[in-house]
Amino acid sequence: MNDASTQVRADLDRLLPVLDTALTEPFRLGPAVRLGEAVRYSLEAGGKRVRPVLCLLASEAVGGSVAQALPGALALEYIHTYSLIHDDLPAMDDDDLRRGRPTNHKVFGEGHAILAGDALLTEAFGVLAAADLDPVRRAEALVLLAEGAGWHGMAGGQALDLEGEAIASYDLDHLRLIHRMKTGALLRASLEIGAVLGGASSSERAALRAYGEAIGLAFQIQDDILDATATEAELGKRTGKDAGKSKITYPSLLGLDGARNALDEATETALCQLATLPKPNSLAAWARYLAQRAK
Amino acid sequence: MNDASTQVRADLDRLLPVLDTALTEPFRLGPAVRLGEAVRYSLEAGGKRVRPVLCLLASEAVGGSVAQALPGALALEYIHTYSLIHDDLPAMDDDDLRRGRPTNHKVFGEGHAILAGDALLTEAFGVLAAADLDPVRRAEALVLLAEGAGWHGMAGGQALDLEGEAIASYDLDHLRLIHRMKTGALLRASLEIGAVLGGASSSERAALRAYGEAIGLAFQIQDDILDATATEAELGKRTGKDAGKSKITYPSLLGLDGARNALDEATETALCQLATLPKPNSLAAWARYLAQRAK
Repeated sequence: MNDASTQVRADLDRLLPVLDTALTEPFRLGPAVRLGEAVRYSLEAGGKRVRPVLCLLASEAVGGSVAQALPGALALEYIHTYSLIHDDLPAMDDDDLRRGRPTNHKVFGEGHAILAGDALLTEAFGVLAAADLDPVRRAEALVLLAEGAGWHGMAGGQALDLEGEAIASYDLDHLRLIHRMKTGALLRASLEIGAVLGGASSSERAALRAYGEAIGLAFQIQDDILDATATEAELGKRTGKDAGKSKITYPSLLGLDGARNALDEATETALCQLATLPKPNSLAAWARYLAQRAK
Repeated sequence: MNDASTQVRADLDRLLPVLDTALTEPFRLGPAVRLGEAVRYSLEAGGKRVRPVLCLLASEAVGGSVAQALPGALALEYIHTYSLIHDDLPAMDDDDLRRGRPTNHKVFGEGHAILAGDALLTEAFGVLAAADLDPVRRAEALVLLAEGAGWHGMAGGQALDLEGEAIASYDLDHLRLIHRMKTGALLRASLEIGAVLGGASSSERAALRAYGEAIGLAFQIQDDILDATATEAELGKRTGKDAGKSKITYPSLLGLDGARNALDEATETALCQLATLPKPNSLAAWARYLAQRAK
């Protein structure tokens, strides 16, 4: 353990219990019992809750609180969880395992998996719209969430990624565009929503947006590197599938060393953005931690 | 043509061009070209735009304008259109035809159909959150939209409906619950969102909510009746499929005459709610028109 991972661990220990309790709350009591189970199954699968944690840390980094960014954090995890459920479907990435457990449609059937994603996507906006927050900040956060998740963001990126599997080869610019949309847009939104709800100044907001942009890139590169090098047992999901489908990745385009250099560059860019923030330590640790994971 | 259908036609002639122009606007320019085509394909399939039109008429009924309810109307049609795309998927109702044309997944593939629904669902909240409206009314409309569309509403109802196909028989109460959620919740939300954005008093809002409740029931009963009696050419979609799958419907539980009586009752309930509104005529015509369609 080094400083970065100690800090990340301390933040997770502090924030995960808050998130875990709140996340399943809206899906406990209602007539659609089986659909509620499907939703909670995926919400309770755990994971590091990267997006909501970064959202909460962004609020703290500009002097805001966990409480005032919590509705945004929940919304981000709902969006992320819906996207995993839909991406795992046979018509998309066709995965049987996720975080070491059978994927949602393997347990609840495809129909309920589609609807579980739809219900999560809807609740993401519902929880944020109903939150007792400053109305202007709340509306800004809702717009950022829609931009990050929708046609110009995550959903559009996933469509381009699906199409890309049919294309024999494309270049680094196209790969970057897909990642900026598919993974980057929601991570960027996570930081910017946390900033907005935490009461950031416009320069702080811009810095956190740029940090989110860089860390989104870092996150995708390290995911590609891990997929190329780690074992199934380590990740809890099928690995090497990108190479098996001859999907374009950073290692396949740049080689493993090239990909690691690109990761270091993105990490540096992220760290530079934090210089002027009141409380940058936790976010700095996250940037270093993501880079280390892929070493 | 009688008075009711003349009034409905006049309102459609006035409102459909406004809606049709605005609906596809957010999906014209963006990097995910093919996904944008898939979204516009379903938005441009036409239909009566029942939900957005009722939303705009609810605003007018309480003295509001079309302009101030338009973002809500667009949001409702995005939600409705996403639900049609997802419901038509093989894992759900497995339909090949919709409004006389091949369903979305038949043209664009299942992956893009799932994502087209996701993008529409996201933009529903995006367009409303970004609208230049009174912030309190806007937040109330967003909450109503999430309630109508989500786990307690449309998505939950669709899940119960899917499960119902596996149940040998269930009673009228269960059928009513499913319809209240699957079809009723979004129609109710259409009226209440229009009321809120149009500046309704709390009693006007309650009346329009009750009208929406009743008209939602009427809408479902007449849909069941039409499915049991009309031909494929008349409706532009497969008919008799409910009976073929031995799905429970109002005619199958109450007989055709019983279903028509239930429809008349729901229509009367709807009409009663309009008594105290400043401009009830268009909504009264809609209630009568829905009942006539199934005669």
